[in-house]
Amino acid sequence: MAKENKGFVTHITPRSEDFSQWYTDVILQSKLVDYAPVRGCMVLRPYGYAIWESIQRVLDKRFKETGHENVYMPLLIPESLLLKEAEHVEGFAPEVAWVTQGGNDILQERLAVRPTSETMFCTMYSKWVSSWRDLPMKYNQWCSVMRWEKSTRPFLRTSEFLWQEGHTIHATLDEAQAETLQMLEIYRELAEESLAIPVIVGEKTQKEKFAGANSTYSIEAMMQDGKALQAGTSHNFGTRFAEAFDIQYLSKDGKLEYVSETSWGVSTRLIGAIIMTHGDERGLRLPPVIAPIQVQIVPIAQHKEGVLEACEEIANKLKSVGIRVDIDDRDTLSAGFKFNDSELKGIPLRIEVGPRDIEQDIITYFRRDTLEKGSFSKSLLLNNVSVLLNQIQKELYSQALKFRDERTADVFNMEELNNQVQIGFARAMWCGDVECEDKIKEETGATTRNMPFDQTPIGETCVCCGKKAKKLIYFSKAY
Amino acid sequence: MAKENKGFVTHITPRSEDFSQWYTDVILQSKLVDYAPVRGCMVLRPYGYAIWESIQRVLDKRFKETGHENVYMPLLIPESLLLKEAEHVEGFAPEVAWVTQGGNDILQERLAVRPTSETMFCTMYSKWVSSWRDLPMKYNQWCSVMRWEKSTRPFLRTSEFLWQEGHTIHATLDEAQAETLQMLEIYRELAEESLAIPVIVGEKTQKEKFAGANSTYSIEAMMQDGKALQAGTSHNFGTRFAEAFDIQYLSKDGKLEYVSETSWGVSTRLIGAIIMTHGDERGLRLPPVIAPIQVQIVPIAQHKEGVLEACEEIANKLKSVGIRVDIDDRDTLSAGFKFNDSELKGIPLRIEVGPRDIEQDIITYFRRDTLEKGSFSKSLLLNNVSVLLNQIQKELYSQALKFRDERTADVFNMEELNNQVQIGFARAMWCGDVECEDKIKEETGATTRNMPFDQTPIGETCVCCGKKAKKLIYFSKAY
Repeated sequence: MAKENKGFVTHITPRSEDFSQWYTDVILQSKLVDYAPVRGCMVLRPYGYAIWESIQRVLDKRFKETGHENVYMPLLIPESLLLKEAEHVEGFAPEVAWVTQGGNDILQERLAVRPTSETMFCTMYSKWVSSWRDLPMKYNQWCSVMRWEKSTRPFLRTSEFLWQEGHTIHATLDEAQAETLQMLEIYRELAEESLAIPVIVGEKTQKEKFAGANSTYSIEAMMQDGKALQAGTSHNFGTRFAEAFDIQYLSKDGKLEYVSETSWGVSTRLIGAIIMTHGDERGLRLPPVIAPIQVQIVPIAQHKEGVLEACEEIANKLKSVGIRVDIDDRDTLSAGFKFNDSELKGIPLRIEVGPRDIEQDIITYFRRDTLEKGSFSKSLLLNNVSVLLNQIQKELYSQALKFRDERTADVFNMEELNNQVQIGFARAMWCGDVECEDKIKEETGATTRNMPFDQTPIGETCVCCGKKAKKLIYFSKAY
Repeated sequence: MAKENKGFVTHITPRSEDFSQWYTDVILQSKLVDYAPVRGCMVLRPYGYAIWESIQRVLDKRFKETGHENVYMPLLIPESLLLKEAEHVEGFAPEVAWVTQGGNDILQERLAVRPTSETMFCTMYSKWVSSWRDLPMKYNQWCSVMRWEKSTRPFLRTSEFLWQEGHTIHATLDEAQAETLQMLEIYRELAEESLAIPVIVGEKTQKEKFAGANSTYSIEAMMQDGKALQAGTSHNFGTRFAEAFDIQYLSKDGKLEYVSETSWGVSTRLIGAIIMTHGDERGLRLPPVIAPIQVQIVPIAQHKEGVLEACEEIANKLKSVGIRVDIDDRDTLSAGFKFNDSELKGIPLRIEVGPRDIEQDIITYFRRDTLEKGSFSKSLLLNNVSVLLNQIQKELYSQALKFRDERTADVFNMEELNNQVQIGFARAMWCGDVECEDKIKEETGATTRNMPFDQTPIGETCVCCGKKAKKLIYFSKAY
């Protein structure tokens, strides 16, 4: 393969000139990811994978706190299982990769490389459940899935991606609904509190729901080009899969009942959301909560006596309170290059340690969020770094919220809607008919994102057909 | 599928009667694993997966401490990549599962579901490396791999399994060799210190090495039926793959040189090794370091006032110092059933909390390793539980070491060798010729395990042909 460009000069296309090229420049030059020698697949490089590990750490803890257990289900799903739920297979069959040969043998039945694992979980649940005492079962798995996509972009849409998929079964519809909403709330919390990405929380329309679900809920984020990115979904299946897979239990009253089921997932797509929410002309800007490196220490005149030792001392102090810190001590690179590199990588806080800082007993820092420099007495190191990291986390969220709010407007007719979705989100009233959804998509290129939980109406008539409106809903173009 | 047996009576076949059936009984009844509706695949249930998470936690920390970074490479490998290194493809082709269709299209080139990822790492390394400054690159990934095995057993040999695969490239052969041995040592440490499994550490013969490696090293454990289980391997490829994949770098002297490469891996097979090393007639016995639950609290007469509260208090104290503890408060089951269940699950320490214990302010415990009961003053809780868990860890190792040593003997002719491999490991001198390896395998069913690092000779002639011996080596039957 062609060698990677190792030149020291990076060039990132300005966002205003070509947002899509900016995205590609940033992900490749910050070494999050690379293209793989397989159609539509990506390689997650150490820095990209470390962000995924941060997301895993936050989410896995919350899953366990809420009583979920991790399992691992087989990668390959026999075609006959996939066929059991009609709407589900219709949704996924066009994008399945099929294993047809094992060793030198042609298989009698094709095996799907899992696009999602409802059918496998249901098969096992039907074996494991017999009484109300066995319920609920709340399982999750971290794995990769495969969807044979026609056009792909790293993180946003790839033939293979990493995700978690939770699958739970419950005695009643109410419990399943409570679970569906609880997991959606955990996703909102992840997005807003850890990734510093404000999201719209609500229910998808029947047209846009998951294949086979009764109802699908989502969190929707706005990227810097005004398009939406669906950042996580939570589905309530009711008893549909239980009926298809015969998952029944003996209730307390001694009756055979079908279980109610949910599933929910987020993927490495979230990394795309982080990049396109926070990135700027210099590269990434990572929220401290999930940044693999929170503080980058850069030695100034590192050959001078005492400089590297001072860096080590500061790093060790920060490490001792759990702050993720790195010293860039590469001896063939200038401090200026290292500054650019730490900014390209979006490291929230930089500490520059030179002879003058050491002499004056001060810490000189640079904030990636505001591009501000500052300094403080070295005795305040631990307190001030913690405070700064908190401030940076909040500032990134505020900037993103301000951007989204400025690009969101209430619209009352098709012209307003069409204008608004060129730059961001349109809030509108909708009659609930799929015909209007289809017409809006055709005429404006925008799709329905979700119906927010706060349904305070902004009008009485559908933005499209003018008939009586039933729902407040968000429209936008989307990834 | 047929419902799982939910009866309260478990029956485990005695080891002496049928070791293989004992193994199956234990893994299914302790709910580590279940059979999947796909040929040769397994489902890792929560308790089984939690053991894997413990192993991951221990190993991933060591990998990072020794400068390795995690990445994720694509699942599917184009056939043309697999064909680049002749010996490698010859070794793996017969057991590859092939994707031949994507969506509705027939693929022009078959894609292998990765059996191992040397070829993918090499392809990316050839793109990423250009100068000596880029070296070493030390990457690892946690993933599943697929090998289309003819006959399978959960954990030991399955068509799909979970593992980690480390792949590193270095400037010199010496550095690659040092890395190969360092990772082998980390595996030894994992096996002996965390899993309480004594292992023989050494080099595989050319016949038994990894397809495409210059040399392969392994750790070998003895199961309770006297058979060996290869529990981890570390390979030095020299420049073989670098030549096949054109991975060159510009040295400090300005010359183009090939990199030297290693790979190393352990898998969920280790869980099989834990079971078959430590298990007994009551079920599993898990070493405290990796037990998902280290202390099982069982309430006695749990309906009585104060019992559950006392359990909670003890659990919270233990949790506060990082001990993994669970209260079995299922209200439809007897204390006796819960005792059996905690023993089946191999939980290292059980604490029984009843009205008398509360009244007398004592902790009553049961050790899973020695089956001893005891009690101590409640004021000693934290100290004594820590001490007990340490003792149990050491005791399990000692028992396994004693068993292995009793079943290991030096042999000097074919008759002795044949007798010894019926019950365990035979240490013998070997001329180094594959003909003797083949003959021994044919006549006794035993294979060479490895050549231990301590090569103090026990004789001068080959156990098989009587010619001058070159190596001390272990023979045994193996999984």
